[in-house]
Amino acid sequence: MNSNHIYLDNNATTPLCKEAYDAMQPYWLESFGNPNSLHNTGRIAHRALAQSMNKIYTLLHASDYDDIILTSGATEANNTVLMSTYYQFIHTGKKKRILSTQVEHPSVAHTLEFLESLGAVIEFIPVNEQGLTTPEMLRSMMDDDVALVSVMWANNETGLVFPVHELAAVAHEFGALFHSDGVQAIGKLPVDLHASGVDFFTFSAHKFHGPKGIGGLFIKAKTPLTPLLHGGSQMGGRRSGTVAVPLIVGMSAALEVAVKNLDKNMAHMSYLRDKLEESISNLPDITIVGKDSPRTPNTSLVSFKGVEGEAFLWDLNEHGIAASTGSACSSADLQANPTFRAMKISADLEHTGIRFSLSRYTTEQDIEETIQAIKSSVSRLREISIVY
Amino acid sequence: MNSNHIYLDNNATTPLCKEAYDAMQPYWLESFGNPNSLHNTGRIAHRALAQSMNKIYTLLHASDYDDIILTSGATEANNTVLMSTYYQFIHTGKKKRILSTQVEHPSVAHTLEFLESLGAVIEFIPVNEQGLTTPEMLRSMMDDDVALVSVMWANNETGLVFPVHELAAVAHEFGALFHSDGVQAIGKLPVDLHASGVDFFTFSAHKFHGPKGIGGLFIKAKTPLTPLLHGGSQMGGRRSGTVAVPLIVGMSAALEVAVKNLDKNMAHMSYLRDKLEESISNLPDITIVGKDSPRTPNTSLVSFKGVEGEAFLWDLNEHGIAASTGSACSSADLQANPTFRAMKISADLEHTGIRFSLSRYTTEQDIEETIQAIKSSVSRLREISIVY
Repeated sequence: MNSNHIYLDNNATTPLCKEAYDAMQPYWLESFGNPNSLHNTGRIAHRALAQSMNKIYTLLHASDYDDIILTSGATEANNTVLMSTYYQFIHTGKKKRILSTQVEHPSVAHTLEFLESLGAVIEFIPVNEQGLTTPEMLRSMMDDDVALVSVMWANNETGLVFPVHELAAVAHEFGALFHSDGVQAIGKLPVDLHASGVDFFTFSAHKFHGPKGIGGLFIKAKTPLTPLLHGGSQMGGRRSGTVAVPLIVGMSAALEVAVKNLDKNMAHMSYLRDKLEESISNLPDITIVGKDSPRTPNTSLVSFKGVEGEAFLWDLNEHGIAASTGSACSSADLQANPTFRAMKISADLEHTGIRFSLSRYTTEQDIEETIQAIKSSVSRLREISIVY
Repeated sequence: MNSNHIYLDNNATTPLCKEAYDAMQPYWLESFGNPNSLHNTGRIAHRALAQSMNKIYTLLHASDYDDIILTSGATEANNTVLMSTYYQFIHTGKKKRILSTQVEHPSVAHTLEFLESLGAVIEFIPVNEQGLTTPEMLRSMMDDDVALVSVMWANNETGLVFPVHELAAVAHEFGALFHSDGVQAIGKLPVDLHASGVDFFTFSAHKFHGPKGIGGLFIKAKTPLTPLLHGGSQMGGRRSGTVAVPLIVGMSAALEVAVKNLDKNMAHMSYLRDKLEESISNLPDITIVGKDSPRTPNTSLVSFKGVEGEAFLWDLNEHGIAASTGSACSSADLQANPTFRAMKISADLEHTGIRFSLSRYTTEQDIEETIQAIKSSVSRLREISIVY
């Protein structure tokens, strides 16, 4: 079995960039110390940790008073914020409501379900037909009993970008905290945590060409947090566990590349994404989800009526192309796409979504081959379809 | 600043072994897929994950019916077991007591403190003057309201080995589950999870020459578990979050080396550890903690009356030797060693403990240099001591 030679599943995971790989090297075999140890071997590791953290603060526009804690990834960061909100309620008895949307990643959605089983009050702000939540929709649901509003920065399946700045402002009017799962934002959109006004922000290295197994949580200055992981009191007591120095060094290197060339990369990805969409837009009965709404430049969720997503995915795979029917986290089951349901997209399109997610490494040649493969595959699958 | 050329702090973290480093290589830049993705790039990652998991099951003597979930390390695994026990109580209203010892690692001890703040009932089985908890001490505290007994396999500071097999049997007599934090056991002691009778077992790759950022939790067949991390339902729904394939491949490779040469490595480490202890045992006023009790072959916790541990550590560091005053997790603060307190070791020895923890890579030359450095440093520090 060979890897796909065209990789258009970058919202699931990205290839590690050479810069991050190289940066990690000294910390595997030579500088392997525990950054909490006081001897030189430990201090060398600690210095690498500190330098990497400084870089991350600067690149994400966090201030020295804010806090960024390292986690094993976005799932842990999202769980940390949501569980903390629940614990704060348990400890204070104040502010019991949590508001979110129905198009969040499973690491938010399923944590909210769990909190509901513990007795928390979870409510969902609707999304409109564009798949977005507006400040007005949020305001109509707010009161001063809301502890947290959690809305993703950009959706993993559609690429739709939520107005987090405005949503955060509404949350703050009512004294609530605002969390954004920013996993799909970094490397695809400008992220200025100071300007955004968010109180919590989640990120994951492997979505921006960093290593798997590491991510982080931004926590605005003076924001209370009950830790999810208790132990050796690393990360100022807010996240315990030995810090994986090679991974944090790799993450900061990947972030640097992603942020420093952002404009160029955004232009490159949107040029190719638009080319892909334009080339297939004259096929009959296709829907490009969220085409006229603000989207990340790399993502295209397309529905071909009568073409079952899973079968399409396999056809593309035979052509050497990696795509996805939606979130990798739910691709192993065959549930209808939650974004489709939330956007009230016609039921006969429910299992037809296919997502192409590009990266800065995607080439024009990749896209041209993909266009040809889509055309031949759609034609073949519609011929044998019993519903088309 | 140069790394210490003699590294005797292997209970804090170990150097990555070459075998694990090499095994990870193909999974960084080339086979980078998300194992949940259905295309070939994902399937290649999934195959590596499955092969690594099979290896881990075999090496730890888990059966196909047992479950092993990957975590970011031991802290997450310990938090998972303890929080799950609390959630099971919340959801069922049954079995509210959790028993543990006062010499657990902070990732157990601080999680228990947190649970107590949520209303859980936490009680500590005493340790005797040998620093151990006996089956009789446990039995005297048991009743059928105990949900979980959590006792470490081997202590990180003293190397003392607890009778987990017998303790698990006592817990089971009363219908309780038994958890053991086995972080300090792997690579130093035989670990047969089937024979041990434990229901939960925690391990961490970076303590047996595997990569940092990954560990695992063994869960015996049919044992209920409420997940700590909710999300994409990886690990059969028991631990969500994208699996870091390079790290799991590295962990399984490291485990293979650690287990396959265990007898030889244990003999090598205990020979050198005994040599170290014998060579310094004729110094006046020294205490070797737990010398006559069962210990891991690599650990020596020594107290030199009148020699403050921190100052000693710095002296050794100047000689190029990495040691520790105890757990790396608490080495940044200057609290008295909890093991010393639990073992009721005389208060004037409280800040005098220094831990030497060897690995299979420690050489006879390392130990000879260390012996000389200890002698000269103890002599120097006692000369300037105001209490000796």
